[in-house]
Amino acid sequence: MRVVTFGEIMLRLSTPRHQRFRQASTMEIEYGGGESNVAVSLANYGQDVSFVSRLPDNDLGECALRSLRAAGIDTTHIVRGGKRLGLYFLETGAVQRPSKVLYDREDSSMATVSPGDIDWDRAFEGASWFHWSGITPAVSASAAEVCREACRAAAERGITISVDLNHRSKLWQYGKSPAEVMPELVDYCDVIVGGSFEAAHYFGVRVEDDSDFLSLAKALGQRFPKATRIVTTLRDSISASHNTYSALLWDGTELHSSPTYQLTHIVDRVGGGDSFMGGLIHGLLSWPGDLTYALRFAVAAAALKHTIPGDVNLVTAEEVISLMQGDGSGRVRR
Amino acid sequence: MRVVTFGEIMLRLSTPRHQRFRQASTMEIEYGGGESNVAVSLANYGQDVSFVSRLPDNDLGECALRSLRAAGIDTTHIVRGGKRLGLYFLETGAVQRPSKVLYDREDSSMATVSPGDIDWDRAFEGASWFHWSGITPAVSASAAEVCREACRAAAERGITISVDLNHRSKLWQYGKSPAEVMPELVDYCDVIVGGSFEAAHYFGVRVEDDSDFLSLAKALGQRFPKATRIVTTLRDSISASHNTYSALLWDGTELHSSPTYQLTHIVDRVGGGDSFMGGLIHGLLSWPGDLTYALRFAVAAAALKHTIPGDVNLVTAEEVISLMQGDGSGRVRR
Amino acid sequence: MRVVTFGEIMLRLSTPRHQRFRQASTMEIEYGGGESNVAVSLANYGQDVSFVSRLPDNDLGECALRSLRAAGIDTTHIVRGGKRLGLYFLETGAVQRPSKVLYDREDSSMATVSPGDIDWDRAFEGASWFHWSGITPAVSASAAEVCREACRAAAERGITISVDLNHRSKLWQYGKSPAEVMPELVDYCDVIVGGSFEAAHYFGVRVEDDSDFLSLAKALGQRFPKATRIVTTLRDSISASHNTYSALLWDGTELHSSPTYQLTHIVDRVGGGDSFMGGLIHGLLSWPGDLTYALRFAVAAAALKHTIPGDVNLVTAEEVISLMQGDGSGRVRR
Amino acid sequence: MRVVTFGEIMLRLSTPRHQRFRQASTMEIEYGGGESNVAVSLANYGQDVSFVSRLPDNDLGECALRSLRAAGIDTTHIVRGGKRLGLYFLETGAVQRPSKVLYDREDSSMATVSPGDIDWDRAFEGASWFHWSGITPAVSASAAEVCREACRAAAERGITISVDLNHRSKLWQYGKSPAEVMPELVDYCDVIVGGSFEAAHYFGVRVEDDSDFLSLAKALGQRFPKATRIVTTLRDSISASHNTYSALLWDGTELHSSPTYQLTHIVDRVGGGDSFMGGLIHGLLSWPGDLTYALRFAVAAAALKHTIPGDVNLVTAEEVISLMQGDGSGRVRR
Amino acid sequence: MRVVTFGEIMLRLSTPRHQRFRQASTMEIEYGGGESNVAVSLANYGQDVSFVSRLPDNDLGECALRSLRAAGIDTTHIVRGGKRLGLYFLETGAVQRPSKVLYDREDSSMATVSPGDIDWDRAFEGASWFHWSGITPAVSASAAEVCREACRAAAERGITISVDLNHRSKLWQYGKSPAEVMPELVDYCDVIVGGSFEAAHYFGVRVEDDSDFLSLAKALGQRFPKATRIVTTLRDSISASHNTYSALLWDGTELHSSPTYQLTHIVDRVGGGDSFMGGLIHGLLSWPGDLTYALRFAVAAAALKHTIPGDVNLVTAEEVISLMQGDGSGRVRR
Amino acid sequence: MRVVTFGEIMLRLSTPRHQRFRQASTMEIEYGGGESNVAVSLANYGQDVSFVSRLPDNDLGECALRSLRAAGIDTTHIVRGGKRLGLYFLETGAVQRPSKVLYDREDSSMATVSPGDIDWDRAFEGASWFHWSGITPAVSASAAEVCREACRAAAERGITISVDLNHRSKLWQYGKSPAEVMPELVDYCDVIVGGSFEAAHYFGVRVEDDSDFLSLAKALGQRFPKATRIVTTLRDSISASHNTYSALLWDGTELHSSPTYQLTHIVDRVGGGDSFMGGLIHGLLSWPGDLTYALRFAVAAAALKHTIPGDVNLVTAEEVISLMQGDGSGRVRR
Repeated sequence: MRVVTFGEIMLRLSTPRHQRFRQASTMEIEYGGGESNVAVSLANYGQDVSFVSRLPDNDLGECALRSLRAAGIDTTHIVRGGKRLGLYFLETGAVQRPSKVLYDREDSSMATVSPGDIDWDRAFEGASWFHWSGITPAVSASAAEVCREACRAAAERGITISVDLNHRSKLWQYGKSPAEVMPELVDYCDVIVGGSFEAAHYFGVRVEDDSDFLSLAKALGQRFPKATRIVTTLRDSISASHNTYSALLWDGTELHSSPTYQLTHIVDRVGGGDSFMGGLIHGLLSWPGDLTYALRFAVAAAALKHTIPGDVNLVTAEEVISLMQGDGSGRVRR
Repeated sequence: MRVVTFGEIMLRLSTPRHQRFRQASTMEIEYGGGESNVAVSLANYGQDVSFVSRLPDNDLGECALRSLRAAGIDTTHIVRGGKRLGLYFLETGAVQRPSKVLYDREDSSMATVSPGDIDWDRAFEGASWFHWSGITPAVSASAAEVCREACRAAAERGITISVDLNHRSKLWQYGKSPAEVMPELVDYCDVIVGGSFEAAHYFGVRVEDDSDFLSLAKALGQRFPKATRIVTTLRDSISASHNTYSALLWDGTELHSSPTYQLTHIVDRVGGGDSFMGGLIHGLLSWPGDLTYALRFAVAAAALKHTIPGDVNLVTAEEVISLMQGDGSGRVRR
Repeated sequence: MRVVTFGEIMLRLSTPRHQRFRQASTMEIEYGGGESNVAVSLANYGQDVSFVSRLPDNDLGECALRSLRAAGIDTTHIVRGGKRLGLYFLETGAVQRPSKVLYDREDSSMATVSPGDIDWDRAFEGASWFHWSGITPAVSASAAEVCREACRAAAERGITISVDLNHRSKLWQYGKSPAEVMPELVDYCDVIVGGSFEAAHYFGVRVEDDSDFLSLAKALGQRFPKATRIVTTLRDSISASHNTYSALLWDGTELHSSPTYQLTHIVDRVGGGDSFMGGLIHGLLSWPGDLTYALRFAVAAAALKHTIPGDVNLVTAEEVISLMQGDGSGRVRR
Repeated sequence: MRVVTFGEIMLRLSTPRHQRFRQASTMEIEYGGGESNVAVSLANYGQDVSFVSRLPDNDLGECALRSLRAAGIDTTHIVRGGKRLGLYFLETGAVQRPSKVLYDREDSSMATVSPGDIDWDRAFEGASWFHWSGITPAVSASAAEVCREACRAAAERGITISVDLNHRSKLWQYGKSPAEVMPELVDYCDVIVGGSFEAAHYFGVRVEDDSDFLSLAKALGQRFPKATRIVTTLRDSISASHNTYSALLWDGTELHSSPTYQLTHIVDRVGGGDSFMGGLIHGLLSWPGDLTYALRFAVAAAALKHTIPGDVNLVTAEEVISLMQGDGSGRVRR
Repeated sequence: MRVVTFGEIMLRLSTPRHQRFRQASTMEIEYGGGESNVAVSLANYGQDVSFVSRLPDNDLGECALRSLRAAGIDTTHIVRGGKRLGLYFLETGAVQRPSKVLYDREDSSMATVSPGDIDWDRAFEGASWFHWSGITPAVSASAAEVCREACRAAAERGITISVDLNHRSKLWQYGKSPAEVMPELVDYCDVIVGGSFEAAHYFGVRVEDDSDFLSLAKALGQRFPKATRIVTTLRDSISASHNTYSALLWDGTELHSSPTYQLTHIVDRVGGGDSFMGGLIHGLLSWPGDLTYALRFAVAAAALKHTIPGDVNLVTAEEVISLMQGDGSGRVRR
Repeated sequence: MRVVTFGEIMLRLSTPRHQRFRQASTMEIEYGGGESNVAVSLANYGQDVSFVSRLPDNDLGECALRSLRAAGIDTTHIVRGGKRLGLYFLETGAVQRPSKVLYDREDSSMATVSPGDIDWDRAFEGASWFHWSGITPAVSASAAEVCREACRAAAERGITISVDLNHRSKLWQYGKSPAEVMPELVDYCDVIVGGSFEAAHYFGVRVEDDSDFLSLAKALGQRFPKATRIVTTLRDSISASHNTYSALLWDGTELHSSPTYQLTHIVDRVGGGDSFMGGLIHGLLSWPGDLTYALRFAVAAAALKHTIPGDVNLVTAEEVISLMQGDGSGRVRR
């Protein structure tokens, strides 16, 4: 059971201790991106996982590669080329002040990937799951094209395909709208994670009441008949420091729901959705017959992510399960 | 429309990560003070602002000057001289443990400023607003004297004058009490920010119920007929980590009030009042016809300050207005 | 009135800023341990206090010694020898993620202490109080033996003896269970701090309802007739970031209770129990006739500890009393 | 006497403590670039100096602006626009390991500046000196075009023009070679700083012996008759930690030379040439009749730069002169 | 061509900025050890390399594993078990003050490895080179036994075996001397790196003049007939900050020598010998017909290591070759 | 054999990593001063030593006290009072750029000490050596007066008195010159450390050739007949990073000299003279019959100080002796 994720990994530069950009004399660095974050989660849970991408042949590309290898991710299908690693700058907010992301990823190696660059035959050898997100086709026309290549190749092999719709309004700068690109790609998918905004904006699927996920899921299910798991996360943002988090999953028959976690002292909210996605894939692979359990795993995993600095969710499956079983007391383990 | 603020800027030395003084092996440094903090806020909002002070002719004086220039503040009316830059040491508290300020500002260049040192004619050229605070006359007899010079000069030019009464009990060590010094100075003011403690202690203006701001404002209005905006901030200190914040403004006719913000995860509370003052001056200059809006701007600005480390409020007017319009959700901006 | 505490002091290595172990490229270091933490609290309150232990004759032993001397603790009864300083690694949790302690203290100098190593006659000269905890006999058979030596010597001199039962399940690896070792040692004690778990596990003292401290205290009082103060702390762990804290004390006649503190933004929870113990000893020594006051002092002290990074409680008696008197507002002191 | 410099300022991200890129978990940040570094030097010497550039209208652009203002540089002629701030990553070498610069400046706001963007009439108002370098026309065709605009405008006003030829082989990627672009620009210059490599590569000016600067200078003087000061710096790189540094200046009649400094424990070599250039302009403006003194000032300034971390030379004219007068002993000043 | 190295990897804790142990409030951490350092070098040069060891099944073991994977080393033959990761504390010296290493590695997982724990059949599958060092048999009797197992298994497969004799006087605490253990192990080796001290102390091989490596090499060659490459490094320690470094290799016929590098501003001397060893194995594998070149590669690699903080040599083969070709000027690469 | 030293201890704030003041966003802090630095050295060598001073009764005074106690110095004769702790800011130079000290010690608790504040009877109980320096009488008239008190009291008890003349030109601001104050104080001294500048400037003792220490020592011996050990240190400052260091001692009969150390990579030069003084007192106490050995100990101690960051010399007597015996190779100790 091998999982393949595909997307861009970037250099993340964040200001320390809630500093605003103009206060920083140092930045903390690490490497992260939606789909590589999912891969890290899966590796932590013991899954055999490959991340596929394109990295520049320079020191920063090498650093990104090393961070993936450290996590235990197979990197042999990453191709090298292009001019630069995508970057993003992060200013961490608090209370009423939102965190702020400044993307600097145009013309990155991943944005300039071309059809044919990646050998999908080799990449999908032995794979049973393929994951991508709405960020990749938003980066550039050619990245969208390679995404299509990947979906087609995965579908041909009968590989389960998941997508996190993940809208980023500051991307999609290359002349096409999500509505022109996404539907064809999502047609390939078995698992869709998204909300009413993406449904409306990408697919023209609208429900009267945005909070009525059941109707939305049914409508999406009709629109994308291959998709048998339609999932949404529910985040109530009381402040930058306090959110609540839960999720719902529609399997075509039944609506599964999770408990709601109070994330009262958020350490780092970035990567929360990716940690949910990683937990969901692990859950669906591990407990295919218990979708509620799989969903609850994903939500508990995402809750823990908010307590960890950085892009990625550094928790074991045992830690997630301990929280699922009700131990959210945070008592010292010694 | 130029604003002039006058006071002392100090070297602030704070212990990192909630350390107590005796734990610190490094200190974080920056430059701040009540009236220069107000100037920084105003510069951030796009106001043309000068800060007037006296700085020593040494490296630390130079550093303070550079921090002001970086913020976009006019520093050409700062005079150089005296022996030392005032300092303050800060230990940041949490929950039930209060933050602790240790002043070391005696005999600073600003405390030893003399009448005539500052060329108020030049400093006020083109100015329409002058701001000072109760800290300056508390520092030394000569600083009080220069403050009087400034108020007189500003009043002669018809410049609007605002004061933040800002009592600091550890100052006022030079043999005079606030009651002997402050009334004459406040007589010049158009805008007074303060509370029942200062009213009683400085001016002998007392109301039966300390929480009855309307009565207090009316009494102050009678005592200082020039003052047409009498303002107070209401801070409920649930703990060092959680405060609530709001404000009231009496314009002689009507009582304007703001919403109350829940500051649930305070990053740095120092400079909160200065950020309110900066927001208020900007508000009164920008929306002179909508005092409620001006007041709400000031309160939202102050709320945001509590999420930023350091003395100064590094937010734009757009960010303040976004919070005023109800977006306190702290959702990531990307 | 001299207090003696006896136990192990370790090098503590903690990851910065809520990092998980695998994220750390630096660790923050300091020196702490249950009984030395108690000694630091007592020194801060002005008590004359000695810490007795065994430290290796190397640089890390020297560092531990220096940290004790800095705190004003008498270290002249510490013996040098053995191979290594015990270590513990700490990962600081948040919200639902617990803090994690990784002990590496086997074969430490303290674990290999032998009967006769410490000259208890000299160590107890002029002492009126002796404190130890359930950690020391858990470390090794010989440490338990030396603990017995100490208790016997203290009891012979009529010194008041206190114990914090403090169960650590990962210790007790040397072939004996607490039930075999602890009863004989606790027989010597005048003050017992512990809960229903230790009562049952160490002494077979069980009550029907774990939350019925009065019954438990009475049962313990019968089992250990010398113990006239039986104390428990009540911690409700809402999350790793938010606990509540209070305590109860049974003096054989009356049940004394404290207010409950809301520890809403915990900075460092480690050492919380030791800070309670330090406060309790100080309270019982300072206000022997007012046990409620003594208990409230201990609880307020422990509350403040949670706002301070590190193992030890760096607060003065004045600061504790200020909180006891109701000032938990955390307003800036300047 | 106002000086104008024109070029790109970048975000510099450097690894701490000689770390290689793959070791860094933080990066130190500041803002620097050839021509802005020259401006900082001039401001430190008390010159009235403007830096002209194009910066993006985002947080990083704002940060760059603030760093310039802090230094006391006039920034009113900087235009805002474009997509991104240029970046460069720096790994600091030692001994036999060279420092490594990784540029990421393509499509920066400065690279995409267009003719007409900058109002040279206003920028040169009151100016007596204009400085640019060979980096700007290397960045993009349009930057080269704007450079030509600037030179033409400066020359029309009779402003002295200096150029630091400063070859960067990794730039010049836009389809033109230096030989096609530089000669026309250098034709405007009064002061040329460069070496035999640039002479040959840019202008086809070759001498038999590369170390025979006199011949080279004469040949360049013939090729560019307007240039009356032709200058070169001589750096012997014994290792990344130890260089020697001196310079020569040909005024058409006489060859002026400086002493050679032993830079035995280099702290940061980046910006060394810019600090020379800043010193040279200050020297030529301050002591136009004593070219040897001016040159020696420039060399002493450059020597001091190598002892300061970062891109810019933070020394006063007094400090430079003290070194020129022979005080290189480094004795503590107290 | 796969290389296998076998030994212990430890947590290294070093004081920052030349601090002595008693000054440190933080420690820099990483993971390193003689034989894993060799593996990192080989991975950097593009060799296919496995590191074999035993790591505890806890967070620190996991961290060590991640650091190896990040470097691109195969870790699939590492077994998990035992109680603790070995540690070492490092204080970095300067000039006349030596660096100081404090080992805390007793009873580590590697020290308690047992014969049979490692599946040498699998570990050596496809391997052509096996490397170990004199540190492993010094750690414990069972580690020495497993080392023997490994040597025997490698020899049976005709794998080339190299050893770095690497004496550590503070180890060898388990009751056997090197003279009792090492000869049998070295009998298996094809490549021996060591000096006159080890020759005498381990094997009783003595030469009249310690500096006469030729005689020593011949004597060792007679004593260990399988060893066809006998190598020594020559380090002259002028101070902790300035060493010189070169090496000699005797191939049974000819004495090969390298140039001597001046390491004038040492950044971190620890791991210098391991970086030589890594370079030597790479050299012998890559240029088996040019032993002088192989040796010079090893020495240049070791020179570069001294400029890099930490245990491991993070350089590429291209960087080493560039230095071999004479570019030790340390000029900035941009 | 107890030693007493008397003087001022200050908060030292230094910029990290060779930063200039204007670059610093943090400062490293510690506590040091000439005479307390001497006390730390003596404690490190195992001497029983008291430091006498006056400290403010605030957090910074407490921190200074803790740092002394950590070092094992008796602090029971320190009196509390006055307004502030003296401060000094340090910018660490390199190569041709000197380090820079900015004093801010006026009106410190020590400067405002008064005759009678210190109970010299108790302070000198059991003491056999008293040390002071020329800094204390330079601070204020009353500090000079208390210094006289101390010298008189020590002399009456027959205690050996040493002085480090230690001129600080920026002090002596209170209206008296050294020539008016120092002679009377030095009359009491048995050991004088100083050079030709102080001899001339303080006592009018001049020799023809400044480098002729023998003549100077003889002249000083005549002027101060009680002084039987007259000592000078010889520092050649090649640059801020490279000094040489040696010393000479005249005992009235014989001139003793030390080897010269090459301090080629200075880590921190501040406190070098104090470390010499501490070594000299230890040497004279330990080897009174071998003055050459005592002097060589002092010089080797001072050499090692230059390799340690901070004010104080953290070396053991064994480490000093190891260097004296010729081991300056800096080879790693493991």
